[in-house]
Amino acid sequence: MARDSQATRARILEAAFAEFARYGIAGARVDRIAEAAGANKRMIYVYYGNKEQLFDQVIQEALEKGAESVPFDALHLPEYAGAIFDHLTADPRLMRLVMWKRLERPEATALEAGSYERKIASLVAAQEAGRVDAGYAPGDVLALVLGVAQAWFTTGVGPADTADGSSAWPEEHRARHRRAVVDAVARIGAPREG
Amino acid sequence: MARDSQATRARILEAAFAEFARYGIAGARVDRIAEAAGANKRMIYVYYGNKEQLFDQVIQEALEKGAESVPFDALHLPEYAGAIFDHLTADPRLMRLVMWKRLERPEATALEAGSYERKIASLVAAQEAGRVDAGYAPGDVLALVLGVAQAWFTTGVGPADTADGSSAWPEEHRARHRRAVVDAVARIGAPREG
Repeated sequence: MARDSQATRARILEAAFAEFARYGIAGARVDRIAEAAGANKRMIYVYYGNKEQLFDQVIQEALEKGAESVPFDALHLPEYAGAIFDHLTADPRLMRLVMWKRLERPEATALEAGSYERKIASLVAAQEAGRVDAGYAPGDVLALVLGVAQAWFTTGVGPADTADGSSAWPEEHRARHRRAVVDAVARIGAPREG
Repeated sequence: MARDSQATRARILEAAFAEFARYGIAGARVDRIAEAAGANKRMIYVYYGNKEQLFDQVIQEALEKGAESVPFDALHLPEYAGAIFDHLTADPRLMRLVMWKRLERPEATALEAGSYERKIASLVAAQEAGRVDAGYAPGDVLALVLGVAQAWFTTGVGPADTADGSSAWPEEHRARHRRAVVDAVARIGAPREG
């Protein structure tokens, strides 16, 4: 019974991830999530509350998984940016989900605020150690690194172009974009000489 | 009469811009647009068709205005990126509108496709003239430049954080972010020595 309920919850979250990535919060329909998960709608409300709360749960899981797969590394920013790019490429629905969040649930959660503060502290230390250009404020370095790593997904040229993330790049393009990410972040983060 | 109708159309587009920037297409309500514009709902359908078509009109106007205020300049990419940043800072609703478009109406219009092709051609020429690093594919340069110029609006640290774009930065922050944009693009675009 307990195992059944755990399996149902997992199926609901998976179906919700797909639904929200495709339609956002306003456009998502709990009926469709219930149907895709083979669960009933009432159970979704019992487990997760309303549609916004279900979204919050989905995004929290996605961000936790992301932080786990791609730990922040202020001492190796180009590699970190490349790993973010890989993580987004592996499932372009993720970037869509994050964009919906930015638009429809913009308030930073405690999780996000804490994660931001830790990144800034690492960047300050990396700047003090002369490993990252100290000419930028640490928050600006972070914005630049993320802006570059996500550029192919946010500027209208990447696989986020399709609602279901189905249009992956040919491998040759993917590799070329990734090299550009890593190279650009290396240039941005490199301490100036003299 | 003709003048009245022109004024009504302008008010509808303005109200639609605000509504779509805040709620996106799925979340927008034509009733609210009608009310804000002091127009009746039927007139909106007569002038612009359905909600999606009204959105297309709003985004097309915004992109045209943007291309006019910030002409692409492959020979001066840092200044171009700074100008994009200024344009987005002046009205953060614009970036929200573009993000909704990416999510809800991702197909490139003829206008966008043409504008992309012209930018690529200019970049190729700038690379051939040795003014932009030819180590990147021209499409990658464009993604990097736009990714950096928009970073403060797409990565969760900028004024796009509020649905109505009301939280502007203190001037000191704005100026610092802008310097980071210009500087980062200068580093990315600079041809490598030797």
